[in-house]
Amino acid sequence: MAGASGYAGGEILRLLLAHPEFEVGEVCAAGNAGTLLGEHHPHLGSLVDRELSATDPAVLADHDVVFLALPHGASAQVAAELPDSVVVIDCGADFRLTDGHAWVRFYDTPYAGSWPYGLPELPRRGGKARDDLRGTRRIAVPGCYPTAVSLALAPGFAADLLEPEDVVVVAASGTSGAGKSAKPHLLGAEVMGSMSPYGVGGVHRHVPEIVQNLSAAAGAPVTLSFTPTLAPMPRGILATCTARLRPGTTPERAREAWERAYSGEEFVRLLPEGRWPTTGAVLGANIAHLQLAVDEATGRVVVTAAIDNLTKGTAGAAVQCANLALGLPETCGLPTTGVAP
Amino acid sequence: MAGASGYAGGEILRLLLAHPEFEVGEVCAAGNAGTLLGEHHPHLGSLVDRELSATDPAVLADHDVVFLALPHGASAQVAAELPDSVVVIDCGADFRLTDGHAWVRFYDTPYAGSWPYGLPELPRRGGKARDDLRGTRRIAVPGCYPTAVSLALAPGFAADLLEPEDVVVVAASGTSGAGKSAKPHLLGAEVMGSMSPYGVGGVHRHVPEIVQNLSAAAGAPVTLSFTPTLAPMPRGILATCTARLRPGTTPERAREAWERAYSGEEFVRLLPEGRWPTTGAVLGANIAHLQLAVDEATGRVVVTAAIDNLTKGTAGAAVQCANLALGLPETCGLPTTGVAP
Amino acid sequence: MAGASGYAGGEILRLLLAHPEFEVGEVCAAGNAGTLLGEHHPHLGSLVDRELSATDPAVLADHDVVFLALPHGASAQVAAELPDSVVVIDCGADFRLTDGHAWVRFYDTPYAGSWPYGLPELPRRGGKARDDLRGTRRIAVPGCYPTAVSLALAPGFAADLLEPEDVVVVAASGTSGAGKSAKPHLLGAEVMGSMSPYGVGGVHRHVPEIVQNLSAAAGAPVTLSFTPTLAPMPRGILATCTARLRPGTTPERAREAWERAYSGEEFVRLLPEGRWPTTGAVLGANIAHLQLAVDEATGRVVVTAAIDNLTKGTAGAAVQCANLALGLPETCGLPTTGVAP
Amino acid sequence: MAGASGYAGGEILRLLLAHPEFEVGEVCAAGNAGTLLGEHHPHLGSLVDRELSATDPAVLADHDVVFLALPHGASAQVAAELPDSVVVIDCGADFRLTDGHAWVRFYDTPYAGSWPYGLPELPRRGGKARDDLRGTRRIAVPGCYPTAVSLALAPGFAADLLEPEDVVVVAASGTSGAGKSAKPHLLGAEVMGSMSPYGVGGVHRHVPEIVQNLSAAAGAPVTLSFTPTLAPMPRGILATCTARLRPGTTPERAREAWERAYSGEEFVRLLPEGRWPTTGAVLGANIAHLQLAVDEATGRVVVTAAIDNLTKGTAGAAVQCANLALGLPETCGLPTTGVAP
Repeated sequence: MAGASGYAGGEILRLLLAHPEFEVGEVCAAGNAGTLLGEHHPHLGSLVDRELSATDPAVLADHDVVFLALPHGASAQVAAELPDSVVVIDCGADFRLTDGHAWVRFYDTPYAGSWPYGLPELPRRGGKARDDLRGTRRIAVPGCYPTAVSLALAPGFAADLLEPEDVVVVAASGTSGAGKSAKPHLLGAEVMGSMSPYGVGGVHRHVPEIVQNLSAAAGAPVTLSFTPTLAPMPRGILATCTARLRPGTTPERAREAWERAYSGEEFVRLLPEGRWPTTGAVLGANIAHLQLAVDEATGRVVVTAAIDNLTKGTAGAAVQCANLALGLPETCGLPTTGVAP
Repeated sequence: MAGASGYAGGEILRLLLAHPEFEVGEVCAAGNAGTLLGEHHPHLGSLVDRELSATDPAVLADHDVVFLALPHGASAQVAAELPDSVVVIDCGADFRLTDGHAWVRFYDTPYAGSWPYGLPELPRRGGKARDDLRGTRRIAVPGCYPTAVSLALAPGFAADLLEPEDVVVVAASGTSGAGKSAKPHLLGAEVMGSMSPYGVGGVHRHVPEIVQNLSAAAGAPVTLSFTPTLAPMPRGILATCTARLRPGTTPERAREAWERAYSGEEFVRLLPEGRWPTTGAVLGANIAHLQLAVDEATGRVVVTAAIDNLTKGTAGAAVQCANLALGLPETCGLPTTGVAP
Repeated sequence: MAGASGYAGGEILRLLLAHPEFEVGEVCAAGNAGTLLGEHHPHLGSLVDRELSATDPAVLADHDVVFLALPHGASAQVAAELPDSVVVIDCGADFRLTDGHAWVRFYDTPYAGSWPYGLPELPRRGGKARDDLRGTRRIAVPGCYPTAVSLALAPGFAADLLEPEDVVVVAASGTSGAGKSAKPHLLGAEVMGSMSPYGVGGVHRHVPEIVQNLSAAAGAPVTLSFTPTLAPMPRGILATCTARLRPGTTPERAREAWERAYSGEEFVRLLPEGRWPTTGAVLGANIAHLQLAVDEATGRVVVTAAIDNLTKGTAGAAVQCANLALGLPETCGLPTTGVAP
Repeated sequence: MAGASGYAGGEILRLLLAHPEFEVGEVCAAGNAGTLLGEHHPHLGSLVDRELSATDPAVLADHDVVFLALPHGASAQVAAELPDSVVVIDCGADFRLTDGHAWVRFYDTPYAGSWPYGLPELPRRGGKARDDLRGTRRIAVPGCYPTAVSLALAPGFAADLLEPEDVVVVAASGTSGAGKSAKPHLLGAEVMGSMSPYGVGGVHRHVPEIVQNLSAAAGAPVTLSFTPTLAPMPRGILATCTARLRPGTTPERAREAWERAYSGEEFVRLLPEGRWPTTGAVLGANIAHLQLAVDEATGRVVVTAAIDNLTKGTAGAAVQCANLALGLPETCGLPTTGVAP
């Protein structure tokens, strides 16, 4: 795996340690090559004495599965040197967008193309994203916000209950979402006890990814106002997602659409009526908790989704995708129980 | 003052201690009468040895100003027994709504009427809410969410730049907003590291209050989707407020409207472009920090507002209102500097 | 299991869900009987729809293992009605102390006797506590502070390197250690951003338990100054433990004693020199991280220990003990990997 | 003032803004010269638009009082260029130690000498530290830990009730104590929900400073085991301080010594019996809250002290010292009310 010293990398290793079918191979990092894993991730049980090696595609090529947890741009470079026979699961953004123009506009680097999108439960016209993932050798793991928001709203679009215009989403993320590089505004003293917005006005890089997912479900272009905020917690995303219901949609019919969309899904749970998601309840688990309410005065449905940004939002999805790619049971080795309180 | 053992009461006392023109008179509480203030508020410097007395309108009547920080319903009862000559500042909801039907629908108790609304800076058609407050003897202090949301969006409505339909707001509040009564879901172990929504679907009691304020600014009925969330911090509200701009409104013209609305206001600050509000920066201060962005892809303006729910959101506003009622300088004794980090 | 709606009960269930050899039987609670487990523990994956039943010893008797997570006093009552053939693992204090006088002095209720003490790794004269646990049918799980402190200091006493007089310990605990009953001083708004001591001056109920453990290791009565503090985090204990080294003890010899004590232990890890324990690294794991330093100016050794109070400090130990009682591998089903960051 | 972009600098400016006798002059910073104060301290009300200038002693010399909030070593350099007529208040360590050997051992840079020690309330043989501060032109502000620990224990030493050997202190600090430079282990994601020790084994730089203070109170060399820990909160120090009582010292006599030591002090408060300090109650206030307990089983007194590391622990003390130096009332402009919850 490449990018082992970061938060996503650490979480992938945590999950692999508990997985019955994987064995951790080479653990690579860029600047931290030569250090021990335990210096970066003292929580990683039996792996703490492993030494990080430099990111060498030739070495990675010698594995059945390679997980890439690298800054955007870097994934595409490493991936280009890996043989087709290796399963490559990319946690970066490089291969998520099918629209090269959107890529260039939001990422301002050359477009590397797109891979099957690793959110198996995602409803779309005529099926689920899972259909593209079984047995494939390249998977682009979704961004953390797109996971929460797309799971929250896609059922309504796929069932034709929502207007594609004027979707509004506000989401709060724990600070691990901002990564492990030390910046003053991410210092503990700055973030504890404080909330702040960022990337306001449609400029966050997850906007085109969410639009892509919801539009695929709607079968029509969706317009989205998306505002991310930083919350004083290490992990977790709480997304509050609203869209206008098509006239005449009853609350019962709306609820039914979500129930149907996720019936049988182990990793997406529509909570019983009256209970609301909390990020605490999904900490460390590869699960999304959802709840919805219809606001009859405004004609909007409000769907809230809670995930752990590092687990279902990144590393858990990566392992779930690897399971699919390898033909293992999709749920193999993945926790659905959170660590609470 | 009545309700001194709660969070709002404690914050009023904190501010009064630093105010050059007020002296703290009788401090009353219901269940906690007979205990010392320091048992509830060990932070209250020179007041910690004061004994709480039972809430007796006859005793309160003997003050120039009475602050009520009571559960809704209780304020109206106490207020009814206070003479007209006393300035009464109510931090509860009882006298905020001008629409008795809305009161009954959201609060389900008899309607007590309405008092001048204590958000002096609030733009409305042809003026500001301040116009009703100077020299008045009864003031209803706004709710904490309505303060943040109304300050965020009213300038755009007052300047006729926003469509009244389909306003969407998601706001995060620190847990002191839920008060001091001990409920399991408010335990530290539950709230630290976790975010959760509540009152979803237009059922929160602050909805009619926000609608009232924005409609007054718009001169037309506003429809609002409002979702509050609980954030892992003791204090602070971050409100993310979006509304559709009228066609053709440029970002410059929008910004100008907000600048004009709050030019000269000491307690509302539109931040310089490029900086975003944080609740940390307004902790303990009687100030709202705002920033806006126009999302050209969706035609929405996104205004984020940060306040301290206990200060500008409650107790600071109460003291500001008392200043106005008594003819003191409006800013007298009120901090605009936050306690950060 | 009894006491399923509390924090200890929830953690036992979380661990059992991941355990290959246990199946969760009846889940009982006192006041919460009739409610669903998911109302109390929405994180508990596949168990959330289970209904809590009243605590009925006759029903419990029908299991191979019964876990008791009850207030002190209640365990003894339930235990008295369970047949000898059932393995009973008590997470309460009732059977921890071998000295009935100490019990009465600190707990002020009748003494119920003592059971083998469930801290397998604990060094004592001539062995480890594990020696009493294999195949036994009654085990008293240690308190959370005693686990951290005893693991930290017992190796030095067992190796005769420490003076028994004047041990000083200060420990910080996350607020889940105070349980789930709603008290004002445990509200999120009170505990976030604040630290406070409690039970100062030798009055905390864990004092006699720690003294019992360290005295058994020392072969002589130990005197202990113990101060617990409440820290703004949901879980975790960081114990800072100091004792005077016997004259002439070199740092090397001290380190060697701790290394030897825990060599081969899966659940106690002396960190490499230069790294210090953090409670974050052991979150959710059945592991204690230790580090020590010799302060040559004062002749004291300082041993710091980090555990998760709910896992190695309670529920993990309970499952570990059940493994031993049933003749399973001691480490079966227990995580040594923390959930970080 | 020099060092305005750091946490100590920001807190000094916050206090000066509320001080009736000071006007903020030039605000200087090293690397951040040319930026606006509001970029670093958005909470600083009317100062946010001030531009930071480079640290130029010639410019600083033109003020009545210069506050230095610089890394150790830097203060001495700037101070050397300031004329004797200017009052210089140094928040750094450079001039705190009277023992040059201790300085070199702990700081490993050349010794710059010592200035009067700015902890006015500190009891010592025959008086208080205040005696040296009135009208002086150079004051060394104490370190944050030494403030808490020295205030906690000096009364017992000054009254000859404590044995000088074997003082043991464990203290927890909020993360602002580690300053504002971005290091990975201080990231929000790392510190939230986690406690960790550092500088264990007598190596923390505040050790010689505490020993100096306590020895001066005792009239004999004190030996100290000091362990600092990092707590998940932005501000605050909770120090748990224990020392052996001289044989025969009753709890009453002990309490009396502390009461007498701080009777009449505005900024040090021995809490009523039964209440314990919390860092939350002193947030933002220039006050120390103390409580003590005698542990009769061990013969130790345990004194706990809570301060805000940035206020009474640094910036508040600095302003208090400036008041003394200038002949103003010592308490002028300083808050004793905390911001809670």
